[in-house]
Amino acid sequence: MDVNNIFEQDLKIVNLGNAGFAAELKDLGVEVTHLDWEPPSRGHVELIDALEALSYRDDIDEANKEAIERYSSSAPVLIDVGRAIDVIPGLSRDTYLHSGPPVAWENMAGPMKGAVIGALMYEGRADNPDEAEALAKSGEIEFSPCHEHNAVGPMAGLISPSMPVFILENKKYGNYAYCTFNEGLGKVLRFGAYSEEVLERLKWIENVLAPGLKRAIALTDGIDMRSIIAQALHMGDEVHNRNKAATSLFIRIIVPYLVKADIPNDELVEIVEFISSNDHFFLNLSMPTCKAMLDAANGVKGSTVVTTMSRNGTEFGIRVSGLGDQWFTGPAEMVKGLYFPGYSEDDANPDIGDSAITETAGIGCFAMAAALPIVQFVGGTPQDALQYTQQMYEVTITDNNMYSIPFFDFRGTPTGIDVRKVIEKNILPRINTGIAHREAGIGQIGAGLVSPPWECFAKAIVALAKEYGNKTD
Amino acid sequence: MDVNNIFEQDLKIVNLGNAGFAAELKDLGVEVTHLDWEPPSRGHVELIDALEALSYRDDIDEANKEAIERYSSSAPVLIDVGRAIDVIPGLSRDTYLHSGPPVAWENMAGPMKGAVIGALMYEGRADNPDEAEALAKSGEIEFSPCHEHNAVGPMAGLISPSMPVFILENKKYGNYAYCTFNEGLGKVLRFGAYSEEVLERLKWIENVLAPGLKRAIALTDGIDMRSIIAQALHMGDEVHNRNKAATSLFIRIIVPYLVKADIPNDELVEIVEFISSNDHFFLNLSMPTCKAMLDAANGVKGSTVVTTMSRNGTEFGIRVSGLGDQWFTGPAEMVKGLYFPGYSEDDANPDIGDSAITETAGIGCFAMAAALPIVQFVGGTPQDALQYTQQMYEVTITDNNMYSIPFFDFRGTPTGIDVRKVIEKNILPRINTGIAHREAGIGQIGAGLVSPPWECFAKAIVALAKEYGNKTD
Repeated sequence: MDVNNIFEQDLKIVNLGNAGFAAELKDLGVEVTHLDWEPPSRGHVELIDALEALSYRDDIDEANKEAIERYSSSAPVLIDVGRAIDVIPGLSRDTYLHSGPPVAWENMAGPMKGAVIGALMYEGRADNPDEAEALAKSGEIEFSPCHEHNAVGPMAGLISPSMPVFILENKKYGNYAYCTFNEGLGKVLRFGAYSEEVLERLKWIENVLAPGLKRAIALTDGIDMRSIIAQALHMGDEVHNRNKAATSLFIRIIVPYLVKADIPNDELVEIVEFISSNDHFFLNLSMPTCKAMLDAANGVKGSTVVTTMSRNGTEFGIRVSGLGDQWFTGPAEMVKGLYFPGYSEDDANPDIGDSAITETAGIGCFAMAAALPIVQFVGGTPQDALQYTQQMYEVTITDNNMYSIPFFDFRGTPTGIDVRKVIEKNILPRINTGIAHREAGIGQIGAGLVSPPWECFAKAIVALAKEYGNKTD
Repeated sequence: MDVNNIFEQDLKIVNLGNAGFAAELKDLGVEVTHLDWEPPSRGHVELIDALEALSYRDDIDEANKEAIERYSSSAPVLIDVGRAIDVIPGLSRDTYLHSGPPVAWENMAGPMKGAVIGALMYEGRADNPDEAEALAKSGEIEFSPCHEHNAVGPMAGLISPSMPVFILENKKYGNYAYCTFNEGLGKVLRFGAYSEEVLERLKWIENVLAPGLKRAIALTDGIDMRSIIAQALHMGDEVHNRNKAATSLFIRIIVPYLVKADIPNDELVEIVEFISSNDHFFLNLSMPTCKAMLDAANGVKGSTVVTTMSRNGTEFGIRVSGLGDQWFTGPAEMVKGLYFPGYSEDDANPDIGDSAITETAGIGCFAMAAALPIVQFVGGTPQDALQYTQQMYEVTITDNNMYSIPFFDFRGTPTGIDVRKVIEKNILPRINTGIAHREAGIGQIGAGLVSPPWECFAKAIVALAKEYGNKTD
């Protein structure tokens, strides 16, 4: 370039890092090429220090290996169905479990409040929404995260004492995981709906579906969940937002036992019609499968592996193996995706539900390259889906030993999020998820992609460094 | 290159076309790079003339458009189950249908002879294999291709008078297609096995499975087959050698009707266990679906679209829309693929079965890019699978209007093989298929890929030119 001509040419600007500069120049009509760039740890000195204290540490690498080994060797098996209060540890008549990190009634998002109202009416604790709300506010009801009771629930994730739950046993480590039954689409409790039809369906689930499935499962030797998921990943599912294949495979397994289980024929018809008509039925089995495996990986001293990612619709929380049951939270983000006709982002609640347990376990969005058709539901192109999975190898420790991606020559899915890698590379995990209406009682309005807030990982690395960090000079 | 130094350098040879030269040089220890190349029409003047006579012809392009339109607008629906002799046109007590083009007893391959023997014993026409063979030889039995009776059958494709068959109706054009029920893997009639267990299973199919499915189907409004296939292609099937998803989806549809159909419970248990345990159950539905659609596309004057590809284990035959029911045959090729433990190509029968109707309809190997996991069964890599599908766009007329490939941004599968394109580009269609043992009674020994012999297309283009060609000067 001839420096003498520089002021005779059109000015071209490349803006690096802070997008604010580029935006101002654009407003002035100047052509700007903006390059996204951030220093490691987003340039926060405290985080760089924490990262340094935890890096190049054989003991931490070994701890992570141990956590991954416990995850990988887990053997989650569906063994039974039971009533929540009878089987889930720490429940009382007044305990209501919800998704995500702890949250008080007054801070609950619309769909979660709706689900609490519905659950109180379902339990016969209130005759109408006003009574239910008064009871919820009264302090008489204890709200507690599913995740603190070996349980998970999609969206609002409400588990009330009488609800039937699947019981999964991790045959290798002896821990259990629990999840309610998927209610289908439309008006359902997990999206905060509590109309008569919703409560009637919940009663039918309690009185017909659950006893039927319990009898059928009793005839099996237990159903191996990882095998179903591994097959489903070769059939276009990522078993978070797409469970069509896994649901179909589960039906193939369970139907012969259902017809052998001496269930009255009219109930049998209802049961098989209900399960067959809901592509998402398996979601409530994929989630506790992941939970059973990750709980086994939790509590390994020194490990920086993420064992929980979950949201209550207000906050996103993560937990880390080496720090046990401690939550690291930040505000839940808005989901970017496709909306059902008539709805837009203005109607949406922030990210909600325990279902990000799938991504935590190396499936969901982490396995999106196995589930290309899902882009028709969450937006983007098949190429995007391949890239999302590819990117997650950057922040994970291992290739999954059981779940694989055909397109990547059957490489294992990216598994075991390392807090250190997230901070070092400024790459947040990506999650496929449904979008709930922000008001109680309406339901699902779309599906898309979201990430945890950065804060969760920033807080976690500082806490990890405090607990396990080398002294820095 | 300095020409003076040429004899001081190592000699490097590029060999174009005839691989024989390269082989001889290699034997002499000379380094040779061989480039596969053939002139169009493999250089045969007669074929070049025929191709020229049929090229740049609006009338032929229009005829092909019409054939494709008839295929694409077809609406194949499963409507019933019936006994072959009662429903398939042109059957008598002495008519036995088989796969592929016509073949006399003495020219039949081992597995087909085995299937004939089994079918005669199943029908009570013979008490033992010797009696059956004597009867087959006697001239009393008429052997006829399934394809000439609106029917198809996998591998040996035997349809004997008493066998139950699926009845599919093409609701748009009023034609029907028929296929027997899939027997599962292991020792089965379609691979030429005829032991007691094989015949007992066939009787169970006739007496329990068929009546049960007939009652269940009667409760439906008919089952849309194209919708199942379209979904299955997004779930890792190509519905020829991989039918796991389509079988699962079919089970989800049929089971609620089965449990409503007043079938005795012990039979219901047997039926759902039988279907659920066989990933290939849907093959015998995908094949007649393709048949119903391609029969509608057959018989369009001037069309060069292939409407049948099929093999009897001895010969491969194709039929072309513009030439109606005429067969163009050549020797069946050996299948290249993966063998089950203990078997090799020495044990294999040449290519056999009507199942190449799937490739003729734009699925099977033509949709292999939708079914990457299948390479674990037929060999090769996911990249190969993508390339196979990509290559088939070269010899086909259109992108399928119903079946699509997620990885190719949901592009329709390559559909409608044009005899002219095969000849012009020297690219043969590629077929995914099972491998039968060459001796009767053993069964499947592997799976892999195969192509029709070139002769089929060479003969067809000459016949097309004779019927429809412009006069050449």
